[in-house]
Amino acid sequence: MAKKTKSALEEKKGISISEITNSASIKSIKAKRKAEVDIDTLIASILNKDITALSRAITLIESKNPKHLEKANTIIKACLPYANNAIRIGITGVPGVGKSTFIEAFGKHLTTLGKRVAVLAIDPSSTITKGSILGDKTRMEDLVKDDNAFIRPSASGDSLGGVARKTRETIILCEAAGFDVIIIETVGVGQSETTVHSMVDFFLLLKLAGAGDELQGIKRGIIEMADAIAINKADGDNLKKAKLAKAEFSRALHLYPKKSSNWQPKVTLCSAIQNEGIDAIWDIILEYVEVTSKNNYFNTKRNEQNKFWLIQTIEEQLKSDFFNTPKIKKELKKQLRLIETNQTTPFAAADYLLKLKHTIT
Amino acid sequence: MAKKTKSALEEKKGISISEITNSASIKSIKAKRKAEVDIDTLIASILNKDITALSRAITLIESKNPKHLEKANTIIKACLPYANNAIRIGITGVPGVGKSTFIEAFGKHLTTLGKRVAVLAIDPSSTITKGSILGDKTRMEDLVKDDNAFIRPSASGDSLGGVARKTRETIILCEAAGFDVIIIETVGVGQSETTVHSMVDFFLLLKLAGAGDELQGIKRGIIEMADAIAINKADGDNLKKAKLAKAEFSRALHLYPKKSSNWQPKVTLCSAIQNEGIDAIWDIILEYVEVTSKNNYFNTKRNEQNKFWLIQTIEEQLKSDFFNTPKIKKELKKQLRLIETNQTTPFAAADYLLKLKHTIT
Repeated sequence: MAKKTKSALEEKKGISISEITNSASIKSIKAKRKAEVDIDTLIASILNKDITALSRAITLIESKNPKHLEKANTIIKACLPYANNAIRIGITGVPGVGKSTFIEAFGKHLTTLGKRVAVLAIDPSSTITKGSILGDKTRMEDLVKDDNAFIRPSASGDSLGGVARKTRETIILCEAAGFDVIIIETVGVGQSETTVHSMVDFFLLLKLAGAGDELQGIKRGIIEMADAIAINKADGDNLKKAKLAKAEFSRALHLYPKKSSNWQPKVTLCSAIQNEGIDAIWDIILEYVEVTSKNNYFNTKRNEQNKFWLIQTIEEQLKSDFFNTPKIKKELKKQLRLIETNQTTPFAAADYLLKLKHTIT
Repeated sequence: MAKKTKSALEEKKGISISEITNSASIKSIKAKRKAEVDIDTLIASILNKDITALSRAITLIESKNPKHLEKANTIIKACLPYANNAIRIGITGVPGVGKSTFIEAFGKHLTTLGKRVAVLAIDPSSTITKGSILGDKTRMEDLVKDDNAFIRPSASGDSLGGVARKTRETIILCEAAGFDVIIIETVGVGQSETTVHSMVDFFLLLKLAGAGDELQGIKRGIIEMADAIAINKADGDNLKKAKLAKAEFSRALHLYPKKSSNWQPKVTLCSAIQNEGIDAIWDIILEYVEVTSKNNYFNTKRNEQNKFWLIQTIEEQLKSDFFNTPKIKKELKKQLRLIETNQTTPFAAADYLLKLKHTIT
């Protein structure tokens, strides 16, 4: 259990038991007070860098129980003023590129520097299989044992949008809990990179030397999103190939139009397993933060990301509200049949359904 | 003016003037009757292949006047049972590829075969500049003079979605007016190809030999959409290069996964200016129609397109309804400021705005 803090207890001073006469009221108030104390305590403990409290709060965020979500929202709101101070780093690369080994080496490097590191994951496949790329924590043995590291497997959910929301909210709690660096891992498939890219400050793409883009399953768009490409496993016999790949990617990156960040994406070599080149990647990130803080791109990007998530959430909800209305579902089928038999057009059918929705809300 | 038809006049028989006493009523009924006669006449004339009536009806579709749109909807509904019988062909290619010359040669070939051909255009730039790629009709001198051809410049509009709707509705009227082939031209930029692809049966990509994809400004996705690629200007000194390009594209097309149409996209050579290879393209289209009619893909695709436009129209309208609500506009700005100052999250702001919308509708 999270320990109680002074401030959280003091807030309860105003209520005097003798004022209450009705026993049901007493029961209800006691229950409410208990819940409130729990939430207040939890918030205070999170701000006090208590990992257990942080974990409990994230579980509330991930819950499907509306009461839990209400509590989660209270916690998030209380944590917000203390958030926004970490560097958020997205890391992607196809399976086999050595992401887990890299994150362990990178995370250890940061904790050695005195940083506190949280590792989260976005895994679209987990929405189907309920599995998780970080579920197998044994892949990051050293980091798991590190007191300054916090590893949380991917939230599962019905949609990438849902998972994304939970991850974004988890970032806020981690930042309020004093983590300096938030790493968000994603597998190199589906829409997950775009989702991660829209919630991080810096996007790192891990690659292997010698494997073509097709073989690595990396879409062209992913390379455009990268602020740095690290060619991993650049060791032993691989080193020569890796150096060639570095030159190639550098050339390729220069062909893209200059980013509005004024940041020229960098290509670098590393060997996570040999712990080589890891420090250089952290230096690149620090340089990025310096450059983009100076030209104010850092904050502009965060504001744009917030706006994106606001609009995105509203649009998803509007669609889901509409198409999940039972009467609309039924009438949509009817209208589709009318379209198929040339009795109406898609546009007239849309107008009809939109008008119908207005009459039932 | 469109000539009156028997059936349209007969519908008016039931009303007797002597029944009306109030003079305002008489005026209103006379006006209404006049409008009704106009619409009925217009419909009958369209079905009677009257081009002037068709043009007038399209002008109603393109109007921003709600009364005109109401009339347009009546006409479309009446025309629907007579639509759906033409072959709809999308044609794209970057400026300079010779689209106008090609469409003229192709259109003339079809009218020579006794077909009636309508040429429409989707031009996203026209939504901004109010210009039109078909505005300069002089580029299709011979086709313009052909009684069996109908050329209509791109509708202008505030959004590609709006232009698309107008074009889709225009297709219905053209089909009801007995056109056998509907050609929809688009410039090779922006989202217009995807839009055209979603409203045609067959998608033809015009290319030039020797120019790389980058130079031709063609996105990879466009090639995937093509049912045939015609390499234009395959004449004189260009012929050898064109043949090489044909082999290259054929190889490239074979690398794509087989389409659900079971149709293997074809590559062919043509010279619109020399009128060579044009007949072969029409043969390819006829073969496509035969193959996809047999395996029922032809109709399945049209149904899917209808469903796409239904869903698309609803989603666009939901968003526009929401974000154009004055109170939402105002509160959205406030919420964005609260997000920027860490007083709320994008998700909490979205929830707030969605709830607010419910209270004002």
